[in-house]
Amino acid sequence: MRILFIGDVVGRSGRRIVTETLPELRRRWALDLVVINGENAAGGFGITETIYNELVEAGADAITLGNHSFDQREALVFIERAPNLIRPGNYPAGTPGRGAAMVETAKGQRVLIMNLMGRIFMDAMDDPFALADRELAACPLGQAADAILVDFHGEATSEKMAFGHAFDGRASVIVGTHTHIPTADHQVLSGGTAYQSDVGMTGDFDSVIGMEKDEPVRRFLTKIPSGRFEAAKGPATLCGLAVETDDATGLALKVAPLRLGGRLSETQPDFW
Amino acid sequence: MRILFIGDVVGRSGRRIVTETLPELRRRWALDLVVINGENAAGGFGITETIYNELVEAGADAITLGNHSFDQREALVFIERAPNLIRPGNYPAGTPGRGAAMVETAKGQRVLIMNLMGRIFMDAMDDPFALADRELAACPLGQAADAILVDFHGEATSEKMAFGHAFDGRASVIVGTHTHIPTADHQVLSGGTAYQSDVGMTGDFDSVIGMEKDEPVRRFLTKIPSGRFEAAKGPATLCGLAVETDDATGLALKVAPLRLGGRLSETQPDFW
Amino acid sequence: MRILFIGDVVGRSGRRIVTETLPELRRRWALDLVVINGENAAGGFGITETIYNELVEAGADAITLGNHSFDQREALVFIERAPNLIRPGNYPAGTPGRGAAMVETAKGQRVLIMNLMGRIFMDAMDDPFALADRELAACPLGQAADAILVDFHGEATSEKMAFGHAFDGRASVIVGTHTHIPTADHQVLSGGTAYQSDVGMTGDFDSVIGMEKDEPVRRFLTKIPSGRFEAAKGPATLCGLAVETDDATGLALKVAPLRLGGRLSETQPDFW
Amino acid sequence: MRILFIGDVVGRSGRRIVTETLPELRRRWALDLVVINGENAAGGFGITETIYNELVEAGADAITLGNHSFDQREALVFIERAPNLIRPGNYPAGTPGRGAAMVETAKGQRVLIMNLMGRIFMDAMDDPFALADRELAACPLGQAADAILVDFHGEATSEKMAFGHAFDGRASVIVGTHTHIPTADHQVLSGGTAYQSDVGMTGDFDSVIGMEKDEPVRRFLTKIPSGRFEAAKGPATLCGLAVETDDATGLALKVAPLRLGGRLSETQPDFW
Ligand SMILES: [Fe+2]
Ligand SMILES: [Fe+2]
Ligand SMILES: [Fe+2]
Ligand SMILES: [Fe+2]
Ligand SMILES: [Fe+2]
Ligand SMILES: [Fe+2]
Ligand SMILES: [Fe+2]
Ligand SMILES: [Fe+2]
Repeated sequence: MRILFIGDVVGRSGRRIVTETLPELRRRWALDLVVINGENAAGGFGITETIYNELVEAGADAITLGNHSFDQREALVFIERAPNLIRPGNYPAGTPGRGAAMVETAKGQRVLIMNLMGRIFMDAMDDPFALADRELAACPLGQAADAILVDFHGEATSEKMAFGHAFDGRASVIVGTHTHIPTADHQVLSGGTAYQSDVGMTGDFDSVIGMEKDEPVRRFLTKIPSGRFEAAKGPATLCGLAVETDDATGLALKVAPLRLGGRLSETQPDFW
Repeated sequence: MRILFIGDVVGRSGRRIVTETLPELRRRWALDLVVINGENAAGGFGITETIYNELVEAGADAITLGNHSFDQREALVFIERAPNLIRPGNYPAGTPGRGAAMVETAKGQRVLIMNLMGRIFMDAMDDPFALADRELAACPLGQAADAILVDFHGEATSEKMAFGHAFDGRASVIVGTHTHIPTADHQVLSGGTAYQSDVGMTGDFDSVIGMEKDEPVRRFLTKIPSGRFEAAKGPATLCGLAVETDDATGLALKVAPLRLGGRLSETQPDFW
Repeated sequence: MRILFIGDVVGRSGRRIVTETLPELRRRWALDLVVINGENAAGGFGITETIYNELVEAGADAITLGNHSFDQREALVFIERAPNLIRPGNYPAGTPGRGAAMVETAKGQRVLIMNLMGRIFMDAMDDPFALADRELAACPLGQAADAILVDFHGEATSEKMAFGHAFDGRASVIVGTHTHIPTADHQVLSGGTAYQSDVGMTGDFDSVIGMEKDEPVRRFLTKIPSGRFEAAKGPATLCGLAVETDDATGLALKVAPLRLGGRLSETQPDFW
Repeated sequence: MRILFIGDVVGRSGRRIVTETLPELRRRWALDLVVINGENAAGGFGITETIYNELVEAGADAITLGNHSFDQREALVFIERAPNLIRPGNYPAGTPGRGAAMVETAKGQRVLIMNLMGRIFMDAMDDPFALADRELAACPLGQAADAILVDFHGEATSEKMAFGHAFDGRASVIVGTHTHIPTADHQVLSGGTAYQSDVGMTGDFDSVIGMEKDEPVRRFLTKIPSGRFEAAKGPATLCGLAVETDDATGLALKVAPLRLGGRLSETQPDFW
């Protein structure tokens, strides 16, 4: 199966490169599944229903979120009627929406998509390790699902690598989001799970993690806010992770980063 | 000028790839300056004098450190007689050693090397922004120094990018360390400074940030320590950043990552 | 019912004042229940079986713990045969021991004792609010238990006060521990729960939260460890909270701090 | 000298008890100096010029601040014309206002008042220990000043106690603020400095640290904001610390808490 995961889309600039390139990528590479992290799609803060629909029309099978899930308060409502909008599963019980969804591809393959939040240097959520263990036990890879993708939304590289190893062999892909900077450590772990500590944002890299740089730089210098954070408006780099899985086992065969446009050096999977 | 920076060398595995490959790299590429972050060189925790000498003999002009600077207590002593061993400059006044050093290359060029610690999600140190501003004001790039390299040892991508922009044009290279995972965002910023959020460790990537994975994974699962952290012993990936600077201005002309050996995909600068 | 809760006993100095004064206090005031936080009883770090027995013999009906629960690794074993040794309930599932216990007083009254860890500025544990809600729903005050005491082991005053209000009326006593400094905000909340943000340690207050002051002061000044933390050896102040509950409802009627010995100003409940 | 320090005044409720009681307290006890922490005086967030003047008219000789210093942006301006409005001295260089001020009492005694921010569990500021050391070296107690009061605005009890011991004997009073909960550990340290880890807020204690409790409780339960924080409106408790100093040495002779009104148990110094 051919899977493309696209990292935190930031604001209008990030959305533009998705809508302009994803339809063609999906066709050219005959992608079976596209998942996008959309937690920053609305001006950097959360997601609206309009934007959710825009990303789905551009070719996303599912949208994952993170600590910004509900920055746009309408998300608390429309998430209930958006079956493939997935927020971190380790929010408290009773939170609107769901933390995992089973998506069926055009060829009829079932893919479990999970979203989890890390806890190191982040808000206090329920244990993502214990939750993943329960959910993956209930949905064995290669049996109950043809592929499993986990978007682990976290800050600390230690927690992300530990999570990768803890569930190596039980998911097809474990990919990090949230730091907004792509890491160059994509690999197939020894148990067969494709892993990357952070896929990076889809946004303008002439910025501070996607935001216009003046205000954040000034805050570091002065320790006093003097304005709001606004999504940077320059051309975005689309950051993604391409994974080819074995249809029999669900494990990863190949993994490569995708980077298109903007300021970062471009790279594409050479196996498609 | 041709500059190579090598990220956090972790334990014996990391040291081995440095001593085995750096002498040849230095020759092949006619490198003018090599700087290595050595804060984890001694079994993952700090640096000894023997190891410092080993890294210098392998071809390092200077060694930078970080939050693990003094894990080996002998470093508090020998740092005073190791002129090119540089610890973060924003330790409290009175800390042994120095936070910056002017190194002269074989061709007689002067390079200022600074080491600073970030403060987001890290220990409370003095302000690295204010300190960098003072030191760079006292040493204008292209005038008082032919090149300036800053190793910004920090956790948060926001702080690192903000630091990069804040001093863009005033240093040749601003490179992050500490997360142990290389980022794929190397670029020449608009003011001419080569930048990468994190160069990544030089260590075994079948690990949790360089440590044998069992104990860290178990701690995330149980929240109770059941042993010590030990440096992973598998083959290391050498992670570095290659920068070519303009001899007249000191600004960066080209930047590319270097990754050799171990589990990560290999890459080399194509401009040397 | 007459309840006395005694805060974090630190080292030998803390244990001495407990063994010297508690038997007499218990007799004089005809206490029905005594609970002691013992997480720092063994030299400041954890608890041993010998010390557990010592505190029980001095008059404790139950011992609660905190983030130092398992600093002495023998606690992972003997906690299983120590029915009234209670560690925070929001450790991961599978952790040795229990997070709550029903204790029967000499008069045959049943008291539920719970221990929970806060999450603000502390390690990432399971949600103490959700867990308390489940456990208190399963054990209604005045019906399934004649009294309920919760030791909320946390750092932030905001989290502690929020916890108090969230469960006001569903427990007899909600008392904070962990900061080691007694607060002066004891009150019966509007729903009938006796509350104090932190009961304070039972230890030497000529110290840094119970530890000999030289090393912690030096670490704040230098940012470099130069020795181990050791429990301070001067005379301890016993810090406790005295609560009288209504036998019919289980709610609190009266609350007052207890402070005996050492450097702090002494105070005793005037209603016994 | 008779000194009264009053803790973080929160909103209208906190201001009311100050304006209603302070003039009479000042007269009755013939106070020489009154200092108030005003960082939450404007609805819980910062201070306006009108409120500053109101507190001065009620009897404050100086107003200290904290992490909320500039929540009301007008404070960035009027602080320059308010000589006895003191913000933490360890803000970056160039921050409007001052971190210390020398106040002269009606009897002509000079009192140095300093405000500092802690760094544990707080924003990254300059080193308060190093700054205090420099400022106290420049102003020896009993020589350059008849009394010295330090408002240490911090979260962690360890940092506050360490600060107290580090400067014991060099200030008349070291008093903590910021947690909003009064501690019961007031004492004269062995070197002669009056100390209390936190003086507590002057606000409504039927709240979550001074804020209406519904929204903070809900956030702990749901992890999703559903409204703004608003200062609680019930009757406030005035929380203060009373210190009598030796006119010859500047050291503390007596120390006692003051608590008036609202929900907390009342207490007054018995030595005036
Ligand atoms: Fe994001
Ligand atoms: Fe995020
Ligand atoms: Fe490192
Ligand atoms: Fe580090
Ligand atoms: Fe404790
Ligand atoms: Fe504790
Ligand atoms: Fe405050
Ligand atoms: Fe504050």
